[in-house]
Amino acid sequence: MVAIVDIGITRFGKRKENIFELAKESTQNLLKYNIDFVIISNSYSGEFNEISGISSLLTTYLNIDNIPSLRVDNTSGSGGSALLIAKSLLEAKEANVVLVLGIEKMSDKKTKEVTKIISSLLPHDERIASLPSLASLSALEYMKKFNAPRESIAQVAVKNHYNGSLNPYAHIQKRVTLEEVLNSPIISEPLRLYEYTPISDGAAAVVMVRNEDALSYTSKPVYIKGIGTSNYTAYISEKEDFITLPAVVHASKKAFRKAKVDKIDFAELHDMATILEIIQSEDIGLFKKGEGWKAVMEGITSLQGEIPINPSGGLNSKGHPIGASGIAQAVEAFLQIRGEAGERQVKNARVGLSLSMAGYGNSATVIIYGDEP
Amino acid sequence: MVAIVDIGITRFGKRKENIFELAKESTQNLLKYNIDFVIISNSYSGEFNEISGISSLLTTYLNIDNIPSLRVDNTSGSGGSALLIAKSLLEAKEANVVLVLGIEKMSDKKTKEVTKIISSLLPHDERIASLPSLASLSALEYMKKFNAPRESIAQVAVKNHYNGSLNPYAHIQKRVTLEEVLNSPIISEPLRLYEYTPISDGAAAVVMVRNEDALSYTSKPVYIKGIGTSNYTAYISEKEDFITLPAVVHASKKAFRKAKVDKIDFAELHDMATILEIIQSEDIGLFKKGEGWKAVMEGITSLQGEIPINPSGGLNSKGHPIGASGIAQAVEAFLQIRGEAGERQVKNARVGLSLSMAGYGNSATVIIYGDEP
Repeated sequence: MVAIVDIGITRFGKRKENIFELAKESTQNLLKYNIDFVIISNSYSGEFNEISGISSLLTTYLNIDNIPSLRVDNTSGSGGSALLIAKSLLEAKEANVVLVLGIEKMSDKKTKEVTKIISSLLPHDERIASLPSLASLSALEYMKKFNAPRESIAQVAVKNHYNGSLNPYAHIQKRVTLEEVLNSPIISEPLRLYEYTPISDGAAAVVMVRNEDALSYTSKPVYIKGIGTSNYTAYISEKEDFITLPAVVHASKKAFRKAKVDKIDFAELHDMATILEIIQSEDIGLFKKGEGWKAVMEGITSLQGEIPINPSGGLNSKGHPIGASGIAQAVEAFLQIRGEAGERQVKNARVGLSLSMAGYGNSATVIIYGDEP
Repeated sequence: MVAIVDIGITRFGKRKENIFELAKESTQNLLKYNIDFVIISNSYSGEFNEISGISSLLTTYLNIDNIPSLRVDNTSGSGGSALLIAKSLLEAKEANVVLVLGIEKMSDKKTKEVTKIISSLLPHDERIASLPSLASLSALEYMKKFNAPRESIAQVAVKNHYNGSLNPYAHIQKRVTLEEVLNSPIISEPLRLYEYTPISDGAAAVVMVRNEDALSYTSKPVYIKGIGTSNYTAYISEKEDFITLPAVVHASKKAFRKAKVDKIDFAELHDMATILEIIQSEDIGLFKKGEGWKAVMEGITSLQGEIPINPSGGLNSKGHPIGASGIAQAVEAFLQIRGEAGERQVKNARVGLSLSMAGYGNSATVIIYGDEP
């Protein structure tokens, strides 16, 4: 197995820096290591930035151009996939020290263009839909089936904005009230602006080694205890319902089995929209199906609650630079488990989980981290 | 280590089928296996086809949408990188049976657009150049420094078109004379049309398992004996010269060391332009620097020669659907080593080599295959 021994991250947001400068900022303290492989987690450098061959260009720009590199892409789930690949390269001994750099520069394009480009992950005959509109379908179906009050969904945004306000790397560092969420502009009925992730630029990086080498890098490695990954149909019309994500269910089962744990202390989920956090919290087994909304209302998933979800602010408030998001989750797990998360520190955070998801549940990668191997 | 146990490939060329149909055609005999991971080797689905999330969309289209998948991109070198990742997933036991599918649908765009898109792999301030123009610099410098006659370079196209004429999957199945090559339209002085790879659509696929499982799939697995990969600067202005490719030198040294072989029976090189085959044949150590052109003239690299290069026709004649090329090289190695290459069969082909290269030598992956582990 493998461990994370150091991390780097930029503040997420609408950044004036270009993709190369963001890469440099996130890796500036990491290039001192004897890195022998670089994985770039990135999806849309071609579409957003008119750049291909980003893996070579980045290593050249970072002055590590003799180190092998490649790009891993799985849209919004790229980060989880990239971490799985890094783990595999290490365990296969194709590499000894892997830098995984997640990066996306989205604000070069206007919001409408970004939405259109991201919709290109939908099957061609279903592009009339968009990911935000699918989330609204989930919200409507979930509220109806489980009698969940509208407020319980909006409350996820209140919670995650609060957490984000404590995270110096978050895109949105502003608390919002339930009223403000419910009165923010409609995006796709019934969901509102503050319930969706903003469009963000950013980069996040981790350095990974095999467990046996970890203590020579740091006295507090964060170990990857297990990774589970699973796919599900990309066809919207083939999904049975919108209140569960089978890829998430299967990936998390695999991850828990591999990690040999049954309890986690916090989770970073893929809350592209508020409702997704609730559905995912059920799908990974924290709550029974249909009861995730109650946990939000009761504060169980709050920073001081029993099982904090998205202490970083999540995609909702931290932002979602597509290729960077899954790596930023690993960064958060690293900081939390080492007790270095500052004002947003989860108490007794020894075992954490991240969920990196592609499309609308086309693919999911669940990673369980811990302070022990 | 790992082995290839089955393959599939489409004819390369200007195909009327879309990217999904090409994927189906290349994998139709492979989906019977108990595949548990799919690696898509593809670079430009976004730019060429307005498709993102190609890994999920392809598994959905192939009716294997419960199998985890992701995309590996390293521009023209994607295939080599994807095979390295597949090997790593298997050795790390994250997967037991991996399908690697290389695919690119290039002819949706006009030649001028394709060239412009591919130039996006160059550093922004060097995009005045293009890969074809860099090859012409190599040709001029090589001829001058080593007194190589112009004909020796053109002869590579004669040889590779001959080989391609024997390959039912090749894009160009037409023999050409030296005169025809030298009289074909100028692309970038002194190199001519027939000396460059055409723009092709196509897909190629391999099924890989760990060595210990290989014989339960086939009585004749083709073993991967070693993989070497290396990067070099993406800046044209930083290259010392154009007559050697340091990434190729280093990747091949690593591959030979890992494979513990010192002699190969054939090689599939990355002949995007004729001159590249000559330079690469020297860089991987088959000939001394400056003497590769003589080997072409003397027929040493011909199909019946001592060390046949590009028996498949190479990129020059087989075509170069970017994400598919490196996988098609593995397909050729599989067929040659099993003695199933038909009219283009290399005699006593027991150990083969492939070189998958990104950019103008930004990255190189060298793989050595054999009939024994």
